[in-house]
Amino acid sequence: MAQYSAQLDGVFTALSDPTRRAVIGRLGRGPATVGELARDVPMTLPSFMKHLRVLEQHGLIRTRKSGRVRSCELARERLALVDGWLAEQRAVWEGRTDRLERLVSGLEPPKEPR
Amino acid sequence: MAQYSAQLDGVFTALSDPTRRAVIGRLGRGPATVGELARDVPMTLPSFMKHLRVLEQHGLIRTRKSGRVRSCELARERLALVDGWLAEQRAVWEGRTDRLERLVSGLEPPKEPR
Repeated sequence: MAQYSAQLDGVFTALSDPTRRAVIGRLGRGPATVGELARDVPMTLPSFMKHLRVLEQHGLIRTRKSGRVRSCELARERLALVDGWLAEQRAVWEGRTDRLERLVSGLEPPKEPR
Repeated sequence: MAQYSAQLDGVFTALSDPTRRAVIGRLGRGPATVGELARDVPMTLPSFMKHLRVLEQHGLIRTRKSGRVRSCELARERLALVDGWLAEQRAVWEGRTDRLERLVSGLEPPKEPR
């Protein structure tokens, strides 16, 4: 549970930057080399590499070096953590809405406040 | 577009902390006062208030003061931005998968690399 929470911290931190989100969008179309990714980004290569390291560190991309070329691919399963977290929130809301509906339609007596 | 991107930055930043995610989870069950929210959190009130301000600043909660009591409610529409962003990513992946499938089944000739 603590690990899940720490992973969520990392995923949300990684997603809080437009350059990093753009890399994720690009890698969604297929793997790419660092050179290909960097080409579209108006930023120095060292700055861009920092963003890639944040993405890799938090598990959103995998990179592999072959000779002098480093290639990157998206780790979609890590992005699925966000889907999971949103689904949990929705379950809470819907549970609440269901209770309200039952209350309104008289199927369930109101609970005493605790 | 720039505003949408800045809003996403803010939402993801706000979600990158477990205390703030816990507040969102709690407010999913209904509005609560700051006192009620703070009760479950092992942290000083000033530190906790900072987290609430981050959530409010990035549009994930709304707060209202009535006399000496400040109440908070979840702004679900802001959380929907995350759903929207994930749906965009999925559309990219699925577009890619569809193309691969058409390619494999011979319905589409491969494109020349640009």
